[in-house]
Amino acid sequence: MRLDLCTWQEVERYLEHSRGIIIPIGSHEQHGPNGLIGTDAICPEVIARGVGERHQVLVGPTLGVGMAQHHLGFAGSISLRPSTLMAVVADVVSSLVRHGFTHIYFLNGHGGNIATVTAAFSELYAEQSLAGGAAGFHLKLANWFLGRRVMEVTDFLYGGSNGSHATAAEVSLTYYAYPDAAKQVEMSPRVAPDGPFRDSADFRSKFPDGRMGSDPSSACAEHGEQLFEAAVEDTWRTYSQFVDGALRAAR
Amino acid sequence: MRLDLCTWQEVERYLEHSRGIIIPIGSHEQHGPNGLIGTDAICPEVIARGVGERHQVLVGPTLGVGMAQHHLGFAGSISLRPSTLMAVVADVVSSLVRHGFTHIYFLNGHGGNIATVTAAFSELYAEQSLAGGAAGFHLKLANWFLGRRVMEVTDFLYGGSNGSHATAAEVSLTYYAYPDAAKQVEMSPRVAPDGPFRDSADFRSKFPDGRMGSDPSSACAEHGEQLFEAAVEDTWRTYSQFVDGALRAAR
Amino acid sequence: MRLDLCTWQEVERYLEHSRGIIIPIGSHEQHGPNGLIGTDAICPEVIARGVGERHQVLVGPTLGVGMAQHHLGFAGSISLRPSTLMAVVADVVSSLVRHGFTHIYFLNGHGGNIATVTAAFSELYAEQSLAGGAAGFHLKLANWFLGRRVMEVTDFLYGGSNGSHATAAEVSLTYYAYPDAAKQVEMSPRVAPDGPFRDSADFRSKFPDGRMGSDPSSACAEHGEQLFEAAVEDTWRTYSQFVDGALRAAR
Amino acid sequence: MRLDLCTWQEVERYLEHSRGIIIPIGSHEQHGPNGLIGTDAICPEVIARGVGERHQVLVGPTLGVGMAQHHLGFAGSISLRPSTLMAVVADVVSSLVRHGFTHIYFLNGHGGNIATVTAAFSELYAEQSLAGGAAGFHLKLANWFLGRRVMEVTDFLYGGSNGSHATAAEVSLTYYAYPDAAKQVEMSPRVAPDGPFRDSADFRSKFPDGRMGSDPSSACAEHGEQLFEAAVEDTWRTYSQFVDGALRAAR
Amino acid sequence: MRLDLCTWQEVERYLEHSRGIIIPIGSHEQHGPNGLIGTDAICPEVIARGVGERHQVLVGPTLGVGMAQHHLGFAGSISLRPSTLMAVVADVVSSLVRHGFTHIYFLNGHGGNIATVTAAFSELYAEQSLAGGAAGFHLKLANWFLGRRVMEVTDFLYGGSNGSHATAAEVSLTYYAYPDAAKQVEMSPRVAPDGPFRDSADFRSKFPDGRMGSDPSSACAEHGEQLFEAAVEDTWRTYSQFVDGALRAAR
Amino acid sequence: MRLDLCTWQEVERYLEHSRGIIIPIGSHEQHGPNGLIGTDAICPEVIARGVGERHQVLVGPTLGVGMAQHHLGFAGSISLRPSTLMAVVADVVSSLVRHGFTHIYFLNGHGGNIATVTAAFSELYAEQSLAGGAAGFHLKLANWFLGRRVMEVTDFLYGGSNGSHATAAEVSLTYYAYPDAAKQVEMSPRVAPDGPFRDSADFRSKFPDGRMGSDPSSACAEHGEQLFEAAVEDTWRTYSQFVDGALRAAR
Repeated sequence: MRLDLCTWQEVERYLEHSRGIIIPIGSHEQHGPNGLIGTDAICPEVIARGVGERHQVLVGPTLGVGMAQHHLGFAGSISLRPSTLMAVVADVVSSLVRHGFTHIYFLNGHGGNIATVTAAFSELYAEQSLAGGAAGFHLKLANWFLGRRVMEVTDFLYGGSNGSHATAAEVSLTYYAYPDAAKQVEMSPRVAPDGPFRDSADFRSKFPDGRMGSDPSSACAEHGEQLFEAAVEDTWRTYSQFVDGALRAAR
Repeated sequence: MRLDLCTWQEVERYLEHSRGIIIPIGSHEQHGPNGLIGTDAICPEVIARGVGERHQVLVGPTLGVGMAQHHLGFAGSISLRPSTLMAVVADVVSSLVRHGFTHIYFLNGHGGNIATVTAAFSELYAEQSLAGGAAGFHLKLANWFLGRRVMEVTDFLYGGSNGSHATAAEVSLTYYAYPDAAKQVEMSPRVAPDGPFRDSADFRSKFPDGRMGSDPSSACAEHGEQLFEAAVEDTWRTYSQFVDGALRAAR
Repeated sequence: MRLDLCTWQEVERYLEHSRGIIIPIGSHEQHGPNGLIGTDAICPEVIARGVGERHQVLVGPTLGVGMAQHHLGFAGSISLRPSTLMAVVADVVSSLVRHGFTHIYFLNGHGGNIATVTAAFSELYAEQSLAGGAAGFHLKLANWFLGRRVMEVTDFLYGGSNGSHATAAEVSLTYYAYPDAAKQVEMSPRVAPDGPFRDSADFRSKFPDGRMGSDPSSACAEHGEQLFEAAVEDTWRTYSQFVDGALRAAR
Repeated sequence: MRLDLCTWQEVERYLEHSRGIIIPIGSHEQHGPNGLIGTDAICPEVIARGVGERHQVLVGPTLGVGMAQHHLGFAGSISLRPSTLMAVVADVVSSLVRHGFTHIYFLNGHGGNIATVTAAFSELYAEQSLAGGAAGFHLKLANWFLGRRVMEVTDFLYGGSNGSHATAAEVSLTYYAYPDAAKQVEMSPRVAPDGPFRDSADFRSKFPDGRMGSDPSSACAEHGEQLFEAAVEDTWRTYSQFVDGALRAAR
Repeated sequence: MRLDLCTWQEVERYLEHSRGIIIPIGSHEQHGPNGLIGTDAICPEVIARGVGERHQVLVGPTLGVGMAQHHLGFAGSISLRPSTLMAVVADVVSSLVRHGFTHIYFLNGHGGNIATVTAAFSELYAEQSLAGGAAGFHLKLANWFLGRRVMEVTDFLYGGSNGSHATAAEVSLTYYAYPDAAKQVEMSPRVAPDGPFRDSADFRSKFPDGRMGSDPSSACAEHGEQLFEAAVEDTWRTYSQFVDGALRAAR
Repeated sequence: MRLDLCTWQEVERYLEHSRGIIIPIGSHEQHGPNGLIGTDAICPEVIARGVGERHQVLVGPTLGVGMAQHHLGFAGSISLRPSTLMAVVADVVSSLVRHGFTHIYFLNGHGGNIATVTAAFSELYAEQSLAGGAAGFHLKLANWFLGRRVMEVTDFLYGGSNGSHATAAEVSLTYYAYPDAAKQVEMSPRVAPDGPFRDSADFRSKFPDGRMGSDPSSACAEHGEQLFEAAVEDTWRTYSQFVDGALRAAR
């Protein structure tokens, strides 16, 4: 169930039996020579929609621009400041809570969002905690690429060489989602360097083609399909546990 | 050309011959009994992608959540505060300018965004104006539903009764984009009331089914296709004029 | 009734029979070779005071500095950032609401304020809408220069050549208010160019003497008096409609 | 010289021989049973204009709404939050500095503004200090009611009983400026209580008619004239010392 | 009683008989050739702890970094912007109020904090005043160096030459607290110049060794002990008056 | 070397051979029945000072109040909002960078600070990345409790039962630092429950005595000393690697 394709009455009916929703959150940033700029937005979006269709879970709008300041040295990358992304998360949560949603599950596709979204959750909770109240809502950030089954499949497919940015796994998943966008590109070295970084100038000087520790040259739609199935399974399992009683009552 | 499906090298090559980009901007908000919550995001997205494909214009991520505070009385509506949306626009523009984009064209699907996005542009320009500098970028907000051809087609199809929210025109366009999401719903009165409003409680009390001045019961995918063609034509014309010399040099 | 010349007890008595107030809002910015920097503050102030005297409406402090970033290329122009002006409007409204005012009518003299003040209203309403409450106040922005009678008089006096900035109409009104400040200045071309603009450097390069589309050389206090009478009539009519029941009960 | 009555070319000529400007800053807040709500805005405005006329000093727009949260328990009082007033001061200063003004003298009429405006100055200076630069501008906050001559006249007229809010001195000055607004009101006790306060509820409970330590029953326009003359003298002296070399070069 | 050395249950018991707390607030900034960078944090901390031990008053965490933008021209100085310090004060107060503290006494060691902390208090009160509520808390800012007994001792020890920054009095107090950190440094001129300042570049050019109007060459731990005793007496007296009934009930 | 006990000239000399500094960052929050509220500030402070003394590293002011919203249900806990802590980190970094510090190492004592401080670093880097510049500074957040040697000692002393809040390890370290503050308290259950939490009401309901997964009943100063030695070793090793060339040149 895609929120954007519902009418408000359909949402009203959904709320009669469930108080949970999935919000895909990603980024638009370079993903190396053969990875798509939208990779981190596409992955959680397709996974969330997969869960939504199979399990009748409502899926909200993809927050497609995230905190990607370190990628701004590569053309096409777009970043919100952490403070801006925190404001976005706050307003989205407040809007949903206003309608009666109590369990908001952010399915994340971008490591760079984790600290900021976590801080955004704390900013929302702090409002209650400082006032001496109790938040009527539950927030969860789940990273699809760290799901149990996804990590098993990733290890099976790529062994230890998946890396940390522009990985074969995420590139494969986007090729599964958009087969026409798959690209063949020579990369050298085969496995990119990895390590810490600071701003975008520092990042580019350390990772000149944009990859970090990865070898996405073998990425393909077939792998992507396996990862998709694994991710839908992971997400449904952790989402179900999260919404728990609320959902249980609904089925 | 969808930015999300490009690699960073492809964007780099694009920038060699063009400095313009289209950013669809919309909203997730109720659109009456048969309109989709994503209507205002879907419309500019499909139009922008139409222009992008036919004319090799780069299309950035859809900013799908806008300023829709007045719709929050209806389930599923999501709103950013004006100040949040201003921060989002500022960061997106700053990211693009950093890469060398000089002409950023926001294709808007939601009347409620107009004042806020205009204020966001002024906030960006003010930074330069207060410092005594000159902005190296050009910003434009275009509303697809006010395009010259679109208004002609709208008038032809619906006469004066298109209304101002949840209109037959925008609902038709979404049905063209997502035929499976089309719904048949009885509406009464046939033409909804219209007028000014304040907050979401006020809005809901005045417009109980969410429509304003419209009769979207005749919306259909066929109309949507005509509107799509008109909107692509309008957008290409005004975008071309906007990027002007920059684009001319590119072809 | 000028708020600044009342005691608090007089305001308390006023509130027993009316909940409405007019807040003039303007700008301090260049108005071409013979226009006053205070034009956009002076016009709504004198009109509001005219209404206040004739109809016993309370008139609050003139918010004399507005959003005029595009004029900062000309000496003497002062601008608030949009975000600052939004905070000012929010605090003024909150203060008045606290006393029981329910209908706050901003009489505006500056086109550049419109988007920002509209966004400020939405920011105030959003607070209620996100919390699921209902705003106990009504906000209205009226532009004196777009009043029905004012536009008739303007058309009668200047035909289609009034232009969009430093117009004969507004200059005339300030000469009526401050006859000693009237200036005779040669201007060339007679009618200034018009069109869109971005920041202050862009504005100055396009409109070198500060006028936009106007020929204020024929401005005079006599015209100003006619415009004043028209604007008082317009403002009283729209203000009365706005405060409606509240005022009706008061008389 | 009132900035609002100048053209931009006149300001440009002024800047050829002076880099200084006076900005009156005040408040709209209750001033007891016979004091005007605009007292703290009116006083610095008329004094500044007196200095402006006699000594050809440019006088900018009156910032008429200040930090008066403690007065909000009395009808008609309007307050900005400290953070809002700081943003206003920052933008006004930045605008003026952009034109070449180097010495900006805020003539203040309201004790409640002092801490906030001082903090605003530090916020502006901090921008330079953190960046390792040097501010090209000088900011001064002067309180007319603490001027040397003003305090002598105040002591002569009212002895030690001038008090700290809604004082005879400030009420007299407004009666001089607006003789028609003078009011005769019985007050009891003759001299109001004084002391510290917190928010507006606390203020009103301690100072039920709005006065603090004052007896403004003898306020009159004649006293006001003497205070006006003293204040113009004080302001001119301290302004001259402030702009110093800049002004000296100009004459 | 140091809050940092209590358990939460001990604080709970404290709140059964007292609602007051002391928060030391200072700065890290240069204090001339023989003064410690932590001077303004050390002084209120040791005084507050002295009061805490002798009179069973709870002493919260030292807010050791304050508003010191003007000192940033000297190595080691650290400053918060005024707006940042205001946010810190707001959050600390809100946290304490949440637990039932009603009287929060900030013992300040730095003149540069006064305006900003005062503005921070107003920002907190304004929240209540704009909403029409009443603050359930009392805030006080006390400057140890302006205490009655401290000023007597200072005058006795240093006559009129204590100066305004890097004074003998404050340096002595830090030597009493940290005898090993005492330094002997030649200073020339013996008494430093004094006067107003703006940003850090301006400050350094006017006060090249960091002192303002002071001669701290005779500072010593023995003086420091006398000042410590005086300050503990001052602080206990004014704190007791402040918490008043609350404390009285407690003993 | 404690910054607070240096003069500015001493800092200037330090900068001639090193560009690195350690900033302890902690929290004031409940730590269960026998843990001190200041635990998370005390631990990094004493470790940093240990490193500072043994290795001549400059140690800046302890940022003693952190992001602890979830602990506000227990008396004495104090929290900054994430946005406030981000502003504090930004200003402290900017101040130090202004003096020439290039390597700023935050030694952290509180898990709740990690996301927010990480976001604060990104906010600082984003400023550069959006402007297309390069940050001249390196920021590192190190958590003492996750140090290699510390974890070995912790495992040796407490096996797997150290838990995640109010742990035996951190309580021991504070008892080593403040032996007089050690407390004997019966706790039941011996090992506290663990798990996720949201706001302060949720936290208190799940962890009624404030501990999470820990059994601090065996905490003692002797253990604390071993942990201190381990932590100094860990911190010196990672700090040295961090400042790297800069420090190497200095020795």
